Amino acid sequence: MSRRVHIDLGERSYDVVVAPGLLGDCREALAPLVRGRRIALVTDPWVGDNLLPAFAATLDALSPQWTRFTIEGGEKAKSFAGIEGLLNDMLDAGIDRGCVLLAFGGGVVGDVGGFAAALLMRGIDLIQVPTTLMAQVDSSVGGKNAINTAHGKNLVGSFLQPKIVLADVALPASLPEVELRSGYGEVVKCALLRGAREFAWLEDNLERIFARDPAALVEVVALGVETKAAIVSEDELDRGKRAFVNLGHTFAHAFETQAGFGEFPHGCAVATGLACAADLSARLGMLPSATAERVVAHLRRAGLPTRLDELAGDGEWRAAAIERSMLHDKKTVAGRINFVLLEDLGKPRVSDAVPPALLRETLLNAGADGGDEAGA
Amino acid sequence: MSRRVHIDLGERSYDVVVAPGLLGDCREALAPLVRGRRIALVTDPWVGDNLLPAFAATLDALSPQWTRFTIEGGEKAKSFAGIEGLLNDMLDAGIDRGCVLLAFGGGVVGDVGGFAAALLMRGIDLIQVPTTLMAQVDSSVGGKNAINTAHGKNLVGSFLQPKIVLADVALPASLPEVELRSGYGEVVKCALLRGAREFAWLEDNLERIFARDPAALVEVVALGVETKAAIVSEDELDRGKRAFVNLGHTFAHAFETQAGFGEFPHGCAVATGLACAADLSARLGMLPSATAERVVAHLRRAGLPTRLDELAGDGEWRAAAIERSMLHDKKTVAGRINFVLLEDLGKPRVSDAVPPALLRETLLNAGADGGDEAGA
Repeated sequence: MSRRVHIDLGERSYDVVVAPGLLGDCREALAPLVRGRRIALVTDPWVGDNLLPAFAATLDALSPQWTRFTIEGGEKAKSFAGIEGLLNDMLDAGIDRGCVLLAFGGGVVGDVGGFAAALLMRGIDLIQVPTTLMAQVDSSVGGKNAINTAHGKNLVGSFLQPKIVLADVALPASLPEVELRSGYGEVVKCALLRGAREFAWLEDNLERIFARDPAALVEVVALGVETKAAIVSEDELDRGKRAFVNLGHTFAHAFETQAGFGEFPHGCAVATGLACAADLSARLGMLPSATAERVVAHLRRAGLPTRLDELAGDGEWRAAAIERSMLHDKKTVAGRINFVLLEDLGKPRVSDAVPPALLRETLLNAGADGGDEAGA
Repeated sequence: MSRRVHIDLGERSYDVVVAPGLLGDCREALAPLVRGRRIALVTDPWVGDNLLPAFAATLDALSPQWTRFTIEGGEKAKSFAGIEGLLNDMLDAGIDRGCVLLAFGGGVVGDVGGFAAALLMRGIDLIQVPTTLMAQVDSSVGGKNAINTAHGKNLVGSFLQPKIVLADVALPASLPEVELRSGYGEVVKCALLRGAREFAWLEDNLERIFARDPAALVEVVALGVETKAAIVSEDELDRGKRAFVNLGHTFAHAFETQAGFGEFPHGCAVATGLACAADLSARLGMLPSATAERVVAHLRRAGLPTRLDELAGDGEWRAAAIERSMLHDKKTVAGRINFVLLEDLGKPRVSDAVPPALLRETLLNAGADGGDEAGA
């Protein structure tokens, strides 16, 4: 009950190992990469207190000297102050080019840890051990890292491919339901990018997945990783096809910017964004309405939000403000918003020519307020 | 009277154009790279006020919209606050992935501008137009960028290869003598890495160079760029041969850390570092003493410092403190200082096994204080 996915990037290639119980059983996989060097383990307070104890024996065996660096939990750590603090802590502790940075936590730890590994002395070796479903299927693979600024999410960052990613599916299985649901939003995105067979598999196995069946979780994580592997291998630096993994995200990032980062789990924003992307694709006459409805139905069955009032009931969701946020998305080029849309299950298409009126219809349909902007 | 050096890095290859008068005569070289896109021009106050006017007509013709971003002058701009401020200024102004960052200035502008281009939305196109001899021969080629931290120089940074480098030798020719001398420290380093023929050429042409003869300056800059091109092409990410360009720099960085960044021009620290590297190589029995003396003699003839008291007469130069700084150099791995030494002109060699007693002799010979460390 284990899968190994190869990410083919020439001399920067690496494997993603997916299995339950890896924390206690990864010494053989890590030893040739660590080679007895000092490990800088980056984590957050919750993971450090709750999940690190089960990992400590393995780390003790791998490195005569490993040091824990704890960053703040949550999106607030993804800031200039957060990365500066971590880099200075590591320099204070004497971390140098000969050390390995191991990012142990969810997406925020992966992002801030990965960014620190990229910048410290212009790059040190990186190992990703993601602990949430979201991080396992998405952020730990592909080498992207970033922090947020007042202007939006992930606007400042870099690329650094890890040497290996270990996805222990026993970890997300131990997390609260809301974490699992949030990660599942990304899984649905992957299935939509892959095709009808993968989407139908999710429809057929939803109960097993949320019953945390280890074999089902291995398949789910492998589905996410394989999707990303195929796209990342063709477009490491995000200049073309990699845009597809942004399905639902132009909406999601704008929702998160409007509400303030961290007001709701990223995967819930993604789920609502996927519903909007499917709806917009149907309004453009690109995707059959029945398929768009099937996407929304599956998200709802998984307990994920598909409307703005479900995302944050007390939020003010002005359509015009959401549209302005999209204009500041980092995929927006020369004032043209790039949407990833669907022609069919498994057939994404990028368009920067969506008529504003149809975008507005999709936002109103999702529950945004189209009223006048006085005071906005 | 122009040279074009190709930096061979596969799909990241680019050219360095070396000629006098390029600022007014580079529209053809830049147009296919800029393609009418918006330019974010990063510069410092002095260059912006004094050199930018001569460049403005070319920029107007290249881009319907170019925007000047001014960073602080001097090493202080190479800080977390400096890079954060520049990135936020660019985001405020709506700079996005479709824009081009043009770094117009000396080494600090190239470093901070290059770092900003690497990090903004994980990387936008970069053009380097270095204005000092130091930046033309050294920092603008190779894609390295960095900022300083309290722990030392260039400890945080990344790699981003520019699309082109334009080295207008009329610019350094217009700068104060001290800038030219400082840059010449790097030129001597390049000749030492290249061989006897190149070093002899410098010995023979020193007067022409300091008389700012344009043809001599083109040769000098091309010598620097070709040296770096050969090494960078073989080792883009600084894992092996690229260490050679660090000749003299393990000393220089420690001198700068001890004195505080910006107390004297970088090239003066490099010159003193080259003298120390030659001296240490001779003490190790690796380099004939006569050759080491010839290196020192040429540096002195060029008006460059070769002793610590010439570098900063009022500084406290404790040998033990300098040695401690070296232990924090980012090339130091697992507590072993990596020195680039010389076996002959054109034959550099890296060693991490220099006996501490010989290093101490070299520092004392350069004027460091070997006294007890009470209160240090």
